[in-house]
Amino acid sequence: MNHYNHTDDIPDLPAWLERGRQLAANPRLLQDLGRGKTLCLLFFNSSLRTRLSTQKAAMLLGLEVMVMNFGSEGWNLEFADGTRMDGGTAEHIKEAAAVVGQYADLVGIRAFAGLKDREADYAEQVLNGFVRYAGVPILNMESATGHPLQALADALTIDTYRRTARPKVVLSWAPHPRALPQAVANSFVQMMRRMDVDFTVTHPPGYDLAPGVMGGLQPVYDQKEALQGADFVYVKNWSSYTDYGTILNQDPAWMMTADKLGDAYFMHCLPVRRNVVVADAVLDGPRSLVIPLAANRTVSAQLALAHLLETNS
Amino acid sequence: MNHYNHTDDIPDLPAWLERGRQLAANPRLLQDLGRGKTLCLLFFNSSLRTRLSTQKAAMLLGLEVMVMNFGSEGWNLEFADGTRMDGGTAEHIKEAAAVVGQYADLVGIRAFAGLKDREADYAEQVLNGFVRYAGVPILNMESATGHPLQALADALTIDTYRRTARPKVVLSWAPHPRALPQAVANSFVQMMRRMDVDFTVTHPPGYDLAPGVMGGLQPVYDQKEALQGADFVYVKNWSSYTDYGTILNQDPAWMMTADKLGDAYFMHCLPVRRNVVVADAVLDGPRSLVIPLAANRTVSAQLALAHLLETNS
Amino acid sequence: MNHYNHTDDIPDLPAWLERGRQLAANPRLLQDLGRGKTLCLLFFNSSLRTRLSTQKAAMLLGLEVMVMNFGSEGWNLEFADGTRMDGGTAEHIKEAAAVVGQYADLVGIRAFAGLKDREADYAEQVLNGFVRYAGVPILNMESATGHPLQALADALTIDTYRRTARPKVVLSWAPHPRALPQAVANSFVQMMRRMDVDFTVTHPPGYDLAPGVMGGLQPVYDQKEALQGADFVYVKNWSSYTDYGTILNQDPAWMMTADKLGDAYFMHCLPVRRNVVVADAVLDGPRSLVIPLAANRTVSAQLALAHLLETNS
Repeated sequence: MNHYNHTDDIPDLPAWLERGRQLAANPRLLQDLGRGKTLCLLFFNSSLRTRLSTQKAAMLLGLEVMVMNFGSEGWNLEFADGTRMDGGTAEHIKEAAAVVGQYADLVGIRAFAGLKDREADYAEQVLNGFVRYAGVPILNMESATGHPLQALADALTIDTYRRTARPKVVLSWAPHPRALPQAVANSFVQMMRRMDVDFTVTHPPGYDLAPGVMGGLQPVYDQKEALQGADFVYVKNWSSYTDYGTILNQDPAWMMTADKLGDAYFMHCLPVRRNVVVADAVLDGPRSLVIPLAANRTVSAQLALAHLLETNS
Repeated sequence: MNHYNHTDDIPDLPAWLERGRQLAANPRLLQDLGRGKTLCLLFFNSSLRTRLSTQKAAMLLGLEVMVMNFGSEGWNLEFADGTRMDGGTAEHIKEAAAVVGQYADLVGIRAFAGLKDREADYAEQVLNGFVRYAGVPILNMESATGHPLQALADALTIDTYRRTARPKVVLSWAPHPRALPQAVANSFVQMMRRMDVDFTVTHPPGYDLAPGVMGGLQPVYDQKEALQGADFVYVKNWSSYTDYGTILNQDPAWMMTADKLGDAYFMHCLPVRRNVVVADAVLDGPRSLVIPLAANRTVSAQLALAHLLETNS
Repeated sequence: MNHYNHTDDIPDLPAWLERGRQLAANPRLLQDLGRGKTLCLLFFNSSLRTRLSTQKAAMLLGLEVMVMNFGSEGWNLEFADGTRMDGGTAEHIKEAAAVVGQYADLVGIRAFAGLKDREADYAEQVLNGFVRYAGVPILNMESATGHPLQALADALTIDTYRRTARPKVVLSWAPHPRALPQAVANSFVQMMRRMDVDFTVTHPPGYDLAPGVMGGLQPVYDQKEALQGADFVYVKNWSSYTDYGTILNQDPAWMMTADKLGDAYFMHCLPVRRNVVVADAVLDGPRSLVIPLAANRTVSAQLALAHLLETNS
């Protein structure tokens, strides 16, 4: 069974990018693909863009959609095997996932990292629990360690705005008042490694991503050096992987400014904290792609859902 | 771009009332008007009537609907310009509104007055933020200072039940244990000033509505005098505008009773506190229009959405 | 007006079971029955299976669905007559129900027992409030004292898996860390009394169900004796009816195990606490029907909704 849980779940990236261009031009191109099928979106965490863009994509494909906020509308799930469930968890993932799979042809899951237990987060217990037990294709709407729908929208946007055959793309860490997961950064790196781009990652010491994510890529600790000649600058905060889930650095010098950006395009997955992560002048300036990037979330969700519908039937 | 944010956004009220009669008789009259378009309803506050009637109206127009509770399912928005967002707000209205506008053809907003900062409430920062930044037509589902969907249902109901060419309509303030916004009263007054009715407003001293709302109209502080000869009595609590957001009066003598009502029709937007705002005998009696008025909320939402669809295409 | 609020609302059970088999084989058999009609689902309590299966059933019948969480998205309702509503309740059931009935052709209600006031719970104030005041057919999605959609799915499942003309069915109480309502047990007993089965109920002393539920049936206090020769074992916790809403017994000896089950089928409505209510070996073993039973919730909701659509038009 094919899922869309990782950027590696895209078999042929150039073909997806081409189809994405067609869908951007004609959003109802595949409007009958999902007819008679139901997509259930389960949110364990808050969502704006993912919630709305995935629903919109599903509607454009003719799917029926059911949305559920698992925390407030359901109850706490148990993930461990063999537990005597006499505490705060009311249902095991084995039953919950299998049951949801009875009512939906496709299931989308949003479940963030807890940032307390690295092994648990990187084991992706919620997402993988649904993969193991739901019996239907799963769509990752941002899991503990990855956000492949965002990364696909990132790729579509870079593909659309590239001005050279092999643009320079820089992922630049930024400060943030709260500890955030590594999910967006992980998937962005994994996606860029598959694109025909000159890719650089810059962050302060202590913010190295998980082993395997970077492949052979070495981060550059000097932001100024990393940004030289950039065509696209993708800014994102994440908390430390090494010193797991902690904030090691809040140096405002890492904030993206118009000076640093130069004539590169600015990208961020949103939501973004103005004048902490990035200066107003960048977001409100002519090089910001944040809104077209958000718009591409509908296209990326259509691509992923179409893939699940076409390859699992 | 045309929005439906104020009773003034109705260009030709008699034509709307006539179309409302047609829609009441034939709810699926415009069932293809919204085909292929999406309405996103964003709730910053609780809702029963508005939530369900607007969804129902959208379905009757063939629109696809996405509903989101911004508070519990999203995060806190920032409205100020130039802020360093290192506190409790996670996204600026500039981004949030622009993003929502990428996924929906129409956006409905419900965002009540905070009743702490009069300038902020009357600046309508949430509603106007979406107007400025969403890039799509906005539907006011009750904002800080107005509730034009309610006022349109009020007008439709008075139009249907009027027994004379120019009926006497009285807006009568009522006590309430909690401080409530002026939104419903404001829009009702603004709507009645456009109707061919003999209109009177009665409330205790200190409850004068915002400058401009009343036009040249003078309130009557003596409820008994105001109610004489009334054909329609619209009862509603609001907190003080002058002494902003406070409760100045809880005198039960202002409660509406069957004696005071006489043979006038009783109206209230609901929810209503029985035996505080209005006596059981009125609500359960033959002159109460609260349920037909609630039913007209579907018609008023259809009229407003149809207007947005027809004049913005 | 016909509602589906009790197992007694099924006029002809064998005919429903036969139609259920047809719907299980062909879920879109009645796909045009609900066209142009709207179902509103109101949740006063959390839900997973009921939420999703009822939505799915509605979609399969061509109904439009509106879902609302009454607690978090609305406000507290008043049920008493004549109350002066100056406290925590903002709207009376009379208005709330009548208003919802203006926007929907069918209304589903989920409202659990509070387990504090037995008279109030067994008076079914929420469910019956909607029956009295909504003016449209009501679907019970688990009320204070009954869960007839679950019981119908139970009947469908027993009907499908029965290996003898008159199988032995045992309802076996199980321990649980929290006090749970009697709703599922009540409806299961009422349903089994209408089925052609050899039915036994076993529970510890003090857990007798409400008068009338059991008819002439006598409970067996010895679980081992009750389970002898069982074809189906339905396991469920409930709190005491006599000593209302309390936990009298948490003896782990009442947990269902593979040894006790033998070659009988295991049933539970879910969610279930593993190794408290039932051992892992049972749930993960070949005799567990919990997932097919959950799947039958879609069929049972289709049957009930189809009945409401067909007999109320």
